[in-house]
Amino acid sequence: MATSEAHVTRIMLAVNESTIRGYPHASISSRGAFEWTLQKIVRSNASGFKLLFLHVQVPDEDGFDDMDSIYASPDDFKSMKNRDRARGLHLLEFFVTRCHEIGVACESWIKKGDPKEVICHEVKRIQPDLLVLGSRGLGPFQRVFVGTVSEFCVKHAECPVVTIKRRSDETPQDPVDD
Amino acid sequence: MATSEAHVTRIMLAVNESTIRGYPHASISSRGAFEWTLQKIVRSNASGFKLLFLHVQVPDEDGFDDMDSIYASPDDFKSMKNRDRARGLHLLEFFVTRCHEIGVACESWIKKGDPKEVICHEVKRIQPDLLVLGSRGLGPFQRVFVGTVSEFCVKHAECPVVTIKRRSDETPQDPVDD
Repeated sequence: MATSEAHVTRIMLAVNESTIRGYPHASISSRGAFEWTLQKIVRSNASGFKLLFLHVQVPDEDGFDDMDSIYASPDDFKSMKNRDRARGLHLLEFFVTRCHEIGVACESWIKKGDPKEVICHEVKRIQPDLLVLGSRGLGPFQRVFVGTVSEFCVKHAECPVVTIKRRSDETPQDPVDD
Repeated sequence: MATSEAHVTRIMLAVNESTIRGYPHASISSRGAFEWTLQKIVRSNASGFKLLFLHVQVPDEDGFDDMDSIYASPDDFKSMKNRDRARGLHLLEFFVTRCHEIGVACESWIKKGDPKEVICHEVKRIQPDLLVLGSRGLGPFQRVFVGTVSEFCVKHAECPVVTIKRRSDETPQDPVDD
């Protein structure tokens, strides 16, 4: 066999929570990208790959989710941060558990910020062999309003990028949902 | 192992000839995309994959290459077509031979037309699991003049697409060359 087995192929997957079901549920497109990676790329060669799961949390700038919360002390903010972190870890647990079951090495971590910027920054830092991104597969009209992370990363990430669109039978009634 | 082994993963690669060395030599970016696919995706799992090589020949509209040729009978055109075909087959032979050596199943074929249109059309017909394209990795200024096949296919091909840029140490003096 001419190809080198010295190093595993490191595949980074950016995963996020479902907009419909919320934490700890993964979005439809994240799951789809993960399943595609296992079925089409990793296949039975579990020892040849390492999956790197990045979950980027968007800082809750408008505080909408916390409308009914009262922040009276620094500890209140701390507990909010802890809650966010716990939710993120729950999301990552799903992916890590699946990998563990099928014997694929993996790592996972959480970052805060603008997903597209953070993903490209982490690609630069981690230098994976491939970045796999789930995509809602929105049309040009819908994209104007929501902006797509995948489109930005295809252009700017410093590694090969593959975008996995949702299957049409998995697309929710409002395709912006995920 | 949870992933299905029922079907192999079918990876389509669009390959073209070198602009510097001409037929039968493959372009730097085609070779790079091929080597990346073997090293990072197929790895030691040769039986899990099938590679589909498509070579698109651009019809020689301005006849520049044939300035000194004389076409006096229908047979002259026929022999030109045969010559093009033979050159294309020579190019494909390189990829098919490499696959044969390492035991990866493959198929290859030639089409005529506008590469980006033909590639997307063939993706629709063949429905591969992944399309791998080599790319010269040109900057925005250079792209204006040469147009890039990969950019078009990332947007329009009806399957996941990954673009493999040339390594910087492989980029010729004129980056439009390949």
